[in-house]
Amino acid sequence: MLKRYFPILEWSAKYNRDTLTKDLVAAVIVTIMLIPQSLAYALLAGLPAEVGLYASIAPLVIYAIFGTSRALAVGPVAVASLMTAAAVGELVSQGTPEYYAAAIALALISGLMLLVVGFLRLGFLANFLSHPVISGFITASAIIIATSQLKHILGVNASGHNLLELLLSLAAHVNEVNFYTLTIGVFATAFLFWVRKNLKPMLRKLGLGPRLAEVVAKTGPVAAVAVTTAIVWALALDAQGVRIIGKIPARLPIPTVPAFDLDLWRAIAVPALLISIVGYVETISVAQTLAAKRRQRINPDQELIALGAANVGSAISGGFPVTGGFSRSVVNFDAGAQTPAAGAFTAVGIAMAALFLAPLLHYLPKATLAATIIVAVLSLIDLDAIKRTWVYSKSDFAAMVATIIVTLSMGVELGIMAGVSLSLFLHLYRSSRPHSAVVGQVPGTEHFRNVNRHKVVVTPEILSIRIDESLYFANARFLEDRISDAVATDPAIEHVVLMCPAVNFIDASALESLEAINERLKHADVILHLSEVKGPVMDRLKRSHFLEGLSGRVYLTQYDAVRTISPHAADKAMEMPRGSL
Amino acid sequence: MLKRYFPILEWSAKYNRDTLTKDLVAAVIVTIMLIPQSLAYALLAGLPAEVGLYASIAPLVIYAIFGTSRALAVGPVAVASLMTAAAVGELVSQGTPEYYAAAIALALISGLMLLVVGFLRLGFLANFLSHPVISGFITASAIIIATSQLKHILGVNASGHNLLELLLSLAAHVNEVNFYTLTIGVFATAFLFWVRKNLKPMLRKLGLGPRLAEVVAKTGPVAAVAVTTAIVWALALDAQGVRIIGKIPARLPIPTVPAFDLDLWRAIAVPALLISIVGYVETISVAQTLAAKRRQRINPDQELIALGAANVGSAISGGFPVTGGFSRSVVNFDAGAQTPAAGAFTAVGIAMAALFLAPLLHYLPKATLAATIIVAVLSLIDLDAIKRTWVYSKSDFAAMVATIIVTLSMGVELGIMAGVSLSLFLHLYRSSRPHSAVVGQVPGTEHFRNVNRHKVVVTPEILSIRIDESLYFANARFLEDRISDAVATDPAIEHVVLMCPAVNFIDASALESLEAINERLKHADVILHLSEVKGPVMDRLKRSHFLEGLSGRVYLTQYDAVRTISPHAADKAMEMPRGSL
Repeated sequence: MLKRYFPILEWSAKYNRDTLTKDLVAAVIVTIMLIPQSLAYALLAGLPAEVGLYASIAPLVIYAIFGTSRALAVGPVAVASLMTAAAVGELVSQGTPEYYAAAIALALISGLMLLVVGFLRLGFLANFLSHPVISGFITASAIIIATSQLKHILGVNASGHNLLELLLSLAAHVNEVNFYTLTIGVFATAFLFWVRKNLKPMLRKLGLGPRLAEVVAKTGPVAAVAVTTAIVWALALDAQGVRIIGKIPARLPIPTVPAFDLDLWRAIAVPALLISIVGYVETISVAQTLAAKRRQRINPDQELIALGAANVGSAISGGFPVTGGFSRSVVNFDAGAQTPAAGAFTAVGIAMAALFLAPLLHYLPKATLAATIIVAVLSLIDLDAIKRTWVYSKSDFAAMVATIIVTLSMGVELGIMAGVSLSLFLHLYRSSRPHSAVVGQVPGTEHFRNVNRHKVVVTPEILSIRIDESLYFANARFLEDRISDAVATDPAIEHVVLMCPAVNFIDASALESLEAINERLKHADVILHLSEVKGPVMDRLKRSHFLEGLSGRVYLTQYDAVRTISPHAADKAMEMPRGSL
Repeated sequence: MLKRYFPILEWSAKYNRDTLTKDLVAAVIVTIMLIPQSLAYALLAGLPAEVGLYASIAPLVIYAIFGTSRALAVGPVAVASLMTAAAVGELVSQGTPEYYAAAIALALISGLMLLVVGFLRLGFLANFLSHPVISGFITASAIIIATSQLKHILGVNASGHNLLELLLSLAAHVNEVNFYTLTIGVFATAFLFWVRKNLKPMLRKLGLGPRLAEVVAKTGPVAAVAVTTAIVWALALDAQGVRIIGKIPARLPIPTVPAFDLDLWRAIAVPALLISIVGYVETISVAQTLAAKRRQRINPDQELIALGAANVGSAISGGFPVTGGFSRSVVNFDAGAQTPAAGAFTAVGIAMAALFLAPLLHYLPKATLAATIIVAVLSLIDLDAIKRTWVYSKSDFAAMVATIIVTLSMGVELGIMAGVSLSLFLHLYRSSRPHSAVVGQVPGTEHFRNVNRHKVVVTPEILSIRIDESLYFANARFLEDRISDAVATDPAIEHVVLMCPAVNFIDASALESLEAINERLKHADVILHLSEVKGPVMDRLKRSHFLEGLSGRVYLTQYDAVRTISPHAADKAMEMPRGSL
């Protein structure tokens, strides 16, 4: 029981010198990667750069205690940072203490929500987010994020709540471009793209192992940060209008209890919920991918608790919403992390950076951080997924495209809600018209198949319908319509046999519909039978009065049904040689 | 095409003297029944009594043109009237011209919504309302309606937005009871209960046919109205504090275009939607029940259009929301109505009542109308349904009870929304954890069954899992968890076979999950196979890259799969005699 809620008790018992070494190496590498990312995502969220560092200390230690994934690295990520900026930006203006307080509250509420959902084991709620909706949402978010960072590359002021506004604002300010900023921004971006694309193959050629090459290639942003900071400092480019991070307090985050502000909490409840869901979905899919590689298990409900605790920890230590990040977790895994202790060691690394590196980052140009963000998020844009989804499923495509369009034009919150609503709607639409077929006997066999697809024998007085779906409220009325129509159009019908081999459950709505069908057929002198009802479904039907009121019988097989109702016809079909029709 | 949207063209072509006679007889009987009902439901909706008559003229004529049911009788009904009172009462105070205008707007918006849904053929949206939610909602509404009418029986002032408030308010005013009113109310109620319970059997004993007895028994309210009105008039009881209907203008409704008021429309949009859905669900189930008795067809989408047009017509002629009523439709049917023309003739009857009967209704005591309402709605309370649902399905029971409790304590709108949300939630919860089973070979056969229920042979290196549900976003992650867990706990597994005979479709989310499972298993050196994939599902998979990336193969049968992967084990199981395990 204790081990369920504190997975640290599980792995720490077997902790040894070898694991320690591997975890330490991974921690050093992840720390180097995480420093520029933390600063950049704080910038994206509209917060002071050091807040990014704060969000990468306590949450990592807390996740190490509660998390079930051995390699997951939590911290600020691009999409959650954008969602933070969107949610908080709606309420208060950026740069104010209220803005920072609202971002902290967002982490707190989001964390508490995750904790509640985790303790109630309601993780399945994340299933509301279908893959096409997530994919569309991330693609649209990445486009918005990249566009929003262009102002830092150009060195101009620009703002906007959606893609069009952002682009128009950039165009309006294009004459204010700062040449030095643009040079730094373009070179940093080009360098980072080159690193991402070419450094790994080059390192491999130089003889590095695949994992090491992967890890080294991830340190590109640190190099960009170091070089551009040095240039700005040496040439005093900040005096030429190049915007820099400026003074970062060289201290650790001070634990504080976030202010109790019910109005604020109510205002951020919906965005906090969305951030929780999106963050959890990303976390769980990364964790599961990495765990599977070593045949390890993760516990999805415990992950909710771990992520929730990490966010509450982030709030208490002055940070903003955190999530399990994809690329940093992969680096952590590839660098050899064996246990969540690697995350705790990373936290120590970030804490040391906050203490000792902060003064050195004074001259870090914002353009470099923007370049880091742009290169990171462009890899999230998956246009191929749109094409694949179009080919595979038009309704999934509709949900995906709706998510993209609404996200780009009306913002992240409405975008994700539109996607979820549409996919739920399309699902109910689909299951409200389940596949069903009128079936007949395949000559010479006891099998019954769709009359429209196979050459089969039907008996005019018997209508056999097979429903290929469980019966529940969404399709209960469909069944009534289907049978009413069939019986009304064919006066020869005296028996209806409902063939149920694919019916996994019948809910109370469908039961009432069956009772209504039975009653209506009785009035029309038609007898209703069932066949091939599954065991659990039959057990449940026995608990109702349906079977007592049923005008016909329940048959084990469709062949039994037809043979009993119309012995001559069924036996004749049985004797017919194949291909006789 | 024209006949689809104007079903009148269909039946009017075959109209003859015989049909006319039958329709006229039915119309007379329904008119007699409808007059007190119309007045009573207007009272319930908080509107002047004559508005009830107006709502029973134009809508009936319009339904006769557009409706596909031969026997449905539309007009004001109890639940929709309660919902009208609740929706409008929230915005403006009763008795004002604004209140009346808002009720008209409610009919208009509700009608327009039904028309749009009908033209877009989105009638399946009504499926969101599961039977337990409807049943719970109607039971709770009936309790509220009956309680709200007690003040008229007692002759006191009382009001409240929920059951508790109503009861407390009644208790606070109990010392103001008017003796004469109470006497009329109690006698009228007792009389109507007696009529409902005993008149039909008595008439049968006197030699009347079953249908005629049924119809005559429905005229009880008219008798109650006539007698109590005469008594109040004769004894001048209105001077003793018995509240009466008062002056009713003796005229037909004057067609007017409802005022365009966007703010009002926005405020009533949600209640209008709820009234539309509840009204449509009642209409369609009555229509289907009656149509089936004569093996006739109704068209659910056209019914939306007919009901929508009827409501727009009600609004334009100064009426409030209307619906197909259950008891009056049954009376219409039993009285022999052959075509919707019976409804049009009823409209003529009501119009004549509005012109000539109105002055006679001046002394009609409100207590009599309240008694009519109470007796009518108490028959809607179905406590047995609660018990039946409890026995049959706990989750349906939960949705039903939540609907009842929220409706009673927080009002009709929140009640129905709570029920719909909870049933959707429970459905997704259930389908997010589909039934699945690890299967093994039944010795001596080619069949594979659940290892936990049957004596079967399993091969240690092969894990065969059967999923008894279509794979889509709600359960895609479940599948990932299920397989990850199984493979992580048993290091002997080298092959996973997913047995898919019950999978009716795989959406894009589930496809991505399958791809993720395939990739993860690859990393763990486990091969993924599928078996018994249905034709349409296979067709769709071929449109993706899944089959190319699949580490294993797709087998026609589970036996094929096991025999190919591990020939020795499968054949050995095949040879094993039954009962050898």
